[in-house]
Amino acid sequence: MKLSLPKKVQIHEVVLRDGIQNEKKLIPTEEKLRLIRELVACGVRRIEVSSFVNRSLVPQMADAEALWERIERRRGVLYSALILSEGGLERAIRCRVPHVGIFVSASETHSLKNSNKSVSEALKEAVRLIDMAQDAGMKVRAGVMNAFGCAYEGPVPVHRVLKLVRAFKKRGADEICLADSSGLANPLRMEDVLARVRGETGEMELSLHLHNTRGLGLANVFSALRQGVAIFDTSLGGLGGCPFIPGARGNIATEDTVFMLHEMGLKTGIELDMLIEAGLPLETLLGKAFQVFASNLKRPPS
Amino acid sequence: MKLSLPKKVQIHEVVLRDGIQNEKKLIPTEEKLRLIRELVACGVRRIEVSSFVNRSLVPQMADAEALWERIERRRGVLYSALILSEGGLERAIRCRVPHVGIFVSASETHSLKNSNKSVSEALKEAVRLIDMAQDAGMKVRAGVMNAFGCAYEGPVPVHRVLKLVRAFKKRGADEICLADSSGLANPLRMEDVLARVRGETGEMELSLHLHNTRGLGLANVFSALRQGVAIFDTSLGGLGGCPFIPGARGNIATEDTVFMLHEMGLKTGIELDMLIEAGLPLETLLGKAFQVFASNLKRPPS
Repeated sequence: MKLSLPKKVQIHEVVLRDGIQNEKKLIPTEEKLRLIRELVACGVRRIEVSSFVNRSLVPQMADAEALWERIERRRGVLYSALILSEGGLERAIRCRVPHVGIFVSASETHSLKNSNKSVSEALKEAVRLIDMAQDAGMKVRAGVMNAFGCAYEGPVPVHRVLKLVRAFKKRGADEICLADSSGLANPLRMEDVLARVRGETGEMELSLHLHNTRGLGLANVFSALRQGVAIFDTSLGGLGGCPFIPGARGNIATEDTVFMLHEMGLKTGIELDMLIEAGLPLETLLGKAFQVFASNLKRPPS
Repeated sequence: MKLSLPKKVQIHEVVLRDGIQNEKKLIPTEEKLRLIRELVACGVRRIEVSSFVNRSLVPQMADAEALWERIERRRGVLYSALILSEGGLERAIRCRVPHVGIFVSASETHSLKNSNKSVSEALKEAVRLIDMAQDAGMKVRAGVMNAFGCAYEGPVPVHRVLKLVRAFKKRGADEICLADSSGLANPLRMEDVLARVRGETGEMELSLHLHNTRGLGLANVFSALRQGVAIFDTSLGGLGGCPFIPGARGNIATEDTVFMLHEMGLKTGIELDMLIEAGLPLETLLGKAFQVFASNLKRPPS
């Protein structure tokens, strides 16, 4: 028995936020602007441009205002920012950010490390931020971090995820995002969690933010496609990882995800060859080879 | 709608054959014997010990006789060899090999490059070898190379795969193995091919030999599990690749496959931590880091 896969899949490109936030080498604003331009030219239609966080704690995000000031806002492209605090949201409002992500961790330990708040305190704050953002005319994706397990706590009971999802839905979030921040999901767990979350969200937009910490990223994507998910956060080059998760590794690579989708006949609107090219200057700037299989198509066999 | 996954999965370990056949650095017979001993100690119950090929063409396999002479044959463990010619089969018979793999490519171009025979000539020869092997009391797995696509020809029509499978079944092979020799399978194609092959094989044992050339290996495993496949060829460290396929990359890694299976609650009988340890001397000998995600569990985050 087969469930049919979604015919079109949206890629939410996070290289400029999750991808580089932990990279020590600072990426110049000009390079970020080039990358955004090229991602759009390749057909990417959702781009996470920055977070609005403490500039001294995350220097890579210090140019958020400059970036938002200078990006060309193309019709049909969703430019998004990640918000972690009221101060951040106020900055985003001043930058006329049209779409924000607001996340709460389903794990108490991670919530404390990541936000210095318990889950219920963090939820209360998130709900307030969602209201503020919507009052300012923004679209909101509300997300659950560590929805599939926690590097500190191990398994995370689904009811904790559902509780957050229900609260976000009640508050009128435009999209629910489940994040496998620790990279602990497996394809079977994916099915179970998604089936139960779908029971709550119904027809709401549902997206996934997956990390490839233990190599199961694309298997999880396939499992999620089978459950009807059609929006995936990915990072060029498989870069990324949360600073407050031990052993965290990169996001699923945009190149590999797009490759798999195309191989299965699903449409993303993205030109894969161009996308691989678009990443090369960033690879050079960071001075490290992307861990990407789709590039095997472009490079001589080693 | 969910198909239930098999509860137990068998790992057919190919590191000693496919894994190292292309490695320039020769692995001493002693090290191979150590590895076989340790694989068995870790719980691996199917081991491809060697092929029987031209010693000067594949020096890594030159010690096949010495190896088969010296391995401790433990009850409950399947020791297997790959056979490519009558001469090879005669050598295997002299070595009292209990189980052999005999493969034909579904792609004309690859068949010519790999065996210097057309597909129909290769099939004729394979059928003769199957008969000979069974007459000698051996169990036979008969396989289709490039069952999911060919690096030279691109897509391979399923009817060509089915034709080979039917011939093998008719000849009384004990197991059918589909090999994604070029690493071109995707999870959706996997479903389609397996559903059609199952239609021919019925209750016969069905196994998969997957390469991770383009990063879709574990997604393909998950897809195949959903179709009831419960035997997978894997290589320690993700080593391997056919010399007659341009851009070929390693087999799916035993460590990562076992990791995913265990995470999903499926049993393999293998101790993963021990398995990772067992591979370290080989990694040192070859002087290159295994491309394995499961090792992220064992090593400090980079």
